[in-house]
Amino acid sequence: MQSFPRITDYLRSGLYRWSGDASTFEGDAYIEVVCSPNNPDGSIREAVLKSSNGKTIHDLAYYWPQYTPITAAADHDIMLFTVSKLSGHAGTRLGWALVKDAEVAKKMVKFIELNTIGVSKDSQLRAATILKAISDGYERPDLQTKPGLKMFEFGRRLLSMRWQKLREAVKSSGIFTLPDIQSVHCKFTGETTEACPAFAWLKCEREGMQDCADFFKKHKILTRGGGHFGVESNYARVSMVDRDETFDLFIERLMSLR
Amino acid sequence: MQSFPRITDYLRSGLYRWSGDASTFEGDAYIEVVCSPNNPDGSIREAVLKSSNGKTIHDLAYYWPQYTPITAAADHDIMLFTVSKLSGHAGTRLGWALVKDAEVAKKMVKFIELNTIGVSKDSQLRAATILKAISDGYERPDLQTKPGLKMFEFGRRLLSMRWQKLREAVKSSGIFTLPDIQSVHCKFTGETTEACPAFAWLKCEREGMQDCADFFKKHKILTRGGGHFGVESNYARVSMVDRDETFDLFIERLMSLR
Repeated sequence: MQSFPRITDYLRSGLYRWSGDASTFEGDAYIEVVCSPNNPDGSIREAVLKSSNGKTIHDLAYYWPQYTPITAAADHDIMLFTVSKLSGHAGTRLGWALVKDAEVAKKMVKFIELNTIGVSKDSQLRAATILKAISDGYERPDLQTKPGLKMFEFGRRLLSMRWQKLREAVKSSGIFTLPDIQSVHCKFTGETTEACPAFAWLKCEREGMQDCADFFKKHKILTRGGGHFGVESNYARVSMVDRDETFDLFIERLMSLR
Repeated sequence: MQSFPRITDYLRSGLYRWSGDASTFEGDAYIEVVCSPNNPDGSIREAVLKSSNGKTIHDLAYYWPQYTPITAAADHDIMLFTVSKLSGHAGTRLGWALVKDAEVAKKMVKFIELNTIGVSKDSQLRAATILKAISDGYERPDLQTKPGLKMFEFGRRLLSMRWQKLREAVKSSGIFTLPDIQSVHCKFTGETTEACPAFAWLKCEREGMQDCADFFKKHKILTRGGGHFGVESNYARVSMVDRDETFDLFIERLMSLR
């Protein structure tokens, strides 16, 4: 459902063009992008198209234990990751891919080279430091007794508390609903847990309220309306990963809505 | 003459395609890229095409006082710069543009946004620090008495010494020639100086020696042959801005060629 930036459209590529939602696509020459957990609703997604001529790209930006139970080792042909959602370093603009076909990987490297002549070394240094700090929290014996240094547990505790606050505020407002989320077993934490998505996907249930994002805006809450994601405007997306003060202010304002 | 990476070709753009050297282009719908000082030969270039329908982009990556006399304030419609050649921070992958037409500037920003969702903040922080350090060397009164802190003078002294060594080595070899470089008045330094390009553009003059880059390679000198720049293979480009040890080794090996 997520709308991707489309350089192919901008340059009117003779090779590729945006064809809309995979669920309405007909044909067998395609590249399907599967965003799982999905942005904006946090749901687990699988490829919709099944032709052996097509290619599937899995965007696993949010497939980390703080956001969602890790139910299986990811094993798709082309998988995209980013430090942006892993640890919140969006500004570093660094991601990586795990790709099974060496020829495809080579083309991806060539594309990056043509686009930007390679990723900033400053970003690479920062990302290497971040990844080391995260894995040190799990792998260095001298840090094992300090649970605060385990990033995924820290992230999950924080998001879990935020989702609890959000559910209470949504319930007390009586205006909105949230997607149903099932508890499943997480192989990383070993616990059965609910997902804690990075976004809340709110649906305005009040009759006659057509534009959810507009309603929020009038109450000084900035969201991204359903239209941006190809659905009705009675939906709105809210970030769950902003700073504490911002999140608390959001809950405060949400609680005051009638 | 410089060969640019061409994302338009890679995506088979319906809008733009590479049409080769501007000097052989016919028509009036074009974007001409003027690299001045030119890579590889360091010469000062002007636009070749003059149609009012065309656009001209000036790549001024090397238009800094350490490389070339600054003869006039640059005042073209679209001018590109980079910290890569200014201070040697190529890995930071940050440049900037001065653009007269606000609509063109907006499109350039949009392109960067679609390509990379913006430049790495790590790079922006590094570049801001670099630019401040350079301007401090000229503008902070307490640093005015320390000539070593004036980056362009430092760069010019270093390059000037290297070019002197290179000219001696080239002369003693009797095999090569270098482009003629005239001394002109530099408005930045106030002196009449020769250019000290970031690359040496060597021509092998020995009869029967067809492949200059290949000849160098046999003597453990890595260059980039004329073919990469659309000219005969009796030309080769050598970097003048590598580390001291590498440059000294290059001169040593060049001196030993017979």
